[in-house]
Amino acid sequence: MVNYPNKKINNNRKITSTANRGMNLEKMINQTNEFYLNNNIAIIHKKPIPIQIVKVDYKRRSAAKIIEAYYKLPSTTDYNGIYKGRYIDFEAKETKSKTSFPLKNIHKHQIIHLEKCLEHGGITFIIIYFSKLDRIFFLDSKYISLYYKRSLKGRKSITLDEIEKNGIEIFQGYRKPIDFLQVIDKYYLS
Amino acid sequence: MVNYPNKKINNNRKITSTANRGMNLEKMINQTNEFYLNNNIAIIHKKPIPIQIVKVDYKRRSAAKIIEAYYKLPSTTDYNGIYKGRYIDFEAKETKSKTSFPLKNIHKHQIIHLEKCLEHGGITFIIIYFSKLDRIFFLDSKYISLYYKRSLKGRKSITLDEIEKNGIEIFQGYRKPIDFLQVIDKYYLS
Repeated sequence: MVNYPNKKINNNRKITSTANRGMNLEKMINQTNEFYLNNNIAIIHKKPIPIQIVKVDYKRRSAAKIIEAYYKLPSTTDYNGIYKGRYIDFEAKETKSKTSFPLKNIHKHQIIHLEKCLEHGGITFIIIYFSKLDRIFFLDSKYISLYYKRSLKGRKSITLDEIEKNGIEIFQGYRKPIDFLQVIDKYYLS
Repeated sequence: MVNYPNKKINNNRKITSTANRGMNLEKMINQTNEFYLNNNIAIIHKKPIPIQIVKVDYKRRSAAKIIEAYYKLPSTTDYNGIYKGRYIDFEAKETKSKTSFPLKNIHKHQIIHLEKCLEHGGITFIIIYFSKLDRIFFLDSKYISLYYKRSLKGRKSITLDEIEKNGIEIFQGYRKPIDFLQVIDKYYLS
């Protein structure tokens, strides 16, 4: 459930200095997805973190206790689901940089995954949060592919200028902290 | 990668008594999805098992070791992805029963999740494997909802007869052990 009082507000109003202060990107996206889910707008979930389970203690009858496990590299993105009949797939990344988004933040197989989903008709993107600037951008995955290719020979990051030019800035909202479906409505489905 | 030699075979041929013997349902589905992925037919992945991580040992520099964690109930299904522009969402369940599929095998919130995905335009189903009979069925999620409703007042399972009547039997294949996209092509997209 969304933990905010149910009062009418303009979700586009820039209220970064109050409501969402201290909220990290994952929490903002999760709250947004919960809003979409609870209002039957879209069905988008974060995937569980991939874990390699090595040892489990079954001694306690109530709950098996995992006592040895390791993080695995994700082979896909963190979020996917369905909106208005369309397959949605995206990754969300936070950076402390004030000038660019370092591409090392996103794994090569995640880029490949986004490319494949795009090829098969999905709507694919990343959400980039510049935490020090408190600015959020929606960037179509085709640009990630483009700049990833560039990074193999040159610059290892996407500059903020480039993101401003090719991405869509999302202003934080209250009940839907990061209303990325608004971008999809406007730029993909209209 | 699919571990079979690359020779032409009829994937519909019933070879349950040889190739896939001893393979459990998850493995058969994963191999099928790998085939789809490697041949750029569809992008369908199993979601990681949801885990509640309680304690992590960061002592070793190379890899953080999770030393206390517990299984969580899944809030969605195990598999989703995209095929020919359509959102695909399903659960796969194995039963040792020879006569019926017990509905306790599938959680209520998974049924609700499938209903929501269907409502938003997804193709939603479950794959049921009768391991003792070595028979596999594709059952549209609308029947799961139907029989789930019935189970609240009566019978707690779906009989094999009902599954034979409302589902589509999938005969095990070699390179694509459970070729569920064939069912989707024939019954949903043609």
